[in-house]
Amino acid sequence: MNRKDIPRIIISRLPVYLRTLQRLQQEGRQTISSQTLGEILGTTAAQIRKDISQFGEFGKQGTGYNIPYLVEQLQHILHLDDIWDVAVVGIGDLGHALARYQGFVDRGFRITALFDNDPEKIGRQIQGLTIEDASLIPSRIPELGIKIAMLTVPVSVAQQTADVLVRAGVRGILNYAPIHLNLPEGVCIEHIDPAIGLQRMTYYIGQRKG
Amino acid sequence: MNRKDIPRIIISRLPVYLRTLQRLQQEGRQTISSQTLGEILGTTAAQIRKDISQFGEFGKQGTGYNIPYLVEQLQHILHLDDIWDVAVVGIGDLGHALARYQGFVDRGFRITALFDNDPEKIGRQIQGLTIEDASLIPSRIPELGIKIAMLTVPVSVAQQTADVLVRAGVRGILNYAPIHLNLPEGVCIEHIDPAIGLQRMTYYIGQRKG
Repeated sequence: MNRKDIPRIIISRLPVYLRTLQRLQQEGRQTISSQTLGEILGTTAAQIRKDISQFGEFGKQGTGYNIPYLVEQLQHILHLDDIWDVAVVGIGDLGHALARYQGFVDRGFRITALFDNDPEKIGRQIQGLTIEDASLIPSRIPELGIKIAMLTVPVSVAQQTADVLVRAGVRGILNYAPIHLNLPEGVCIEHIDPAIGLQRMTYYIGQRKG
Repeated sequence: MNRKDIPRIIISRLPVYLRTLQRLQQEGRQTISSQTLGEILGTTAAQIRKDISQFGEFGKQGTGYNIPYLVEQLQHILHLDDIWDVAVVGIGDLGHALARYQGFVDRGFRITALFDNDPEKIGRQIQGLTIEDASLIPSRIPELGIKIAMLTVPVSVAQQTADVLVRAGVRGILNYAPIHLNLPEGVCIEHIDPAIGLQRMTYYIGQRKG
């Protein structure tokens, strides 16, 4: 199967497999069966085998997957061989928390630029990085070769800020503003909205309450 | 169709429809066609009509959906008629940002309890709420009638903290710790992990780079 034809839903599960396999690797485990991995992840062995087999033959009948090898292969498939530089745009409470978060580097990402339009914030430092004027995005993003941004600006300016980022060369946006953004074809977007997560649960919790 | 049989993937899209419809309502719009709603959301009119029709006949041929009515119906389906009380457990940078976030009430949620186990933090106030000792979770959660928690503790204690919350009566956990949690059947979980979102994009961005 051509890699371009692999369903998006399968791609979306690979980072979840990778996260668990990396943790098992840190714990010193060498091999795992699709059965056990399925139990850890609350899914079936069949689904894991089917998903992973899209990319080649990584498991052995009887012994299962070699964890360090599968981690390496998943990192390669997801283009995580090198660290990606990321910009955080909008340094409010959440942008600040993301800028200080230490967990990105192990997962393939390094925050290398911070932008805000508030004169009170511009020039301040977080973890050694200086908050830059958002009006410099068009020159600084290409200069730094940044392809990915986390967008943590207010809803009212989210679309226009995303447009500026895309024109500057950004090809993937992790959008924290609770609004659907329209981006040109070929630009990736993932949304993070805690209220959506909460509302996905209340459908079920409310049924049992009633 | 019995509501219990409605596929999870459809339920997961309803909050996204609701968010957009609420914004349109705030802008004063009264009606919308499935066609236009599909364009706004980057999906098809057919999918929107199919999803919404699972719950009844809400649109009219020719005029489309009445926005205020559909908002009300979606809120009712998702059990958002009343505001849900939510606890934030783990008041680091992210927990702090969530506690200060003003956008939950309009979406059906109110943060009414904060917990941490750090003596330096216990007793401090955020937005008028006092950070309480996490050891009080078993008594305070049922006392406050809280059914939903946002979990923002370190990976190393995420599973055990989730277990304590579930024993105290929590029925839905929005998990920010980058680890898969195993919870008893009947407890809902949604994961928020920005690195997963980023890795879902690099698969595609990296293909175009190479």
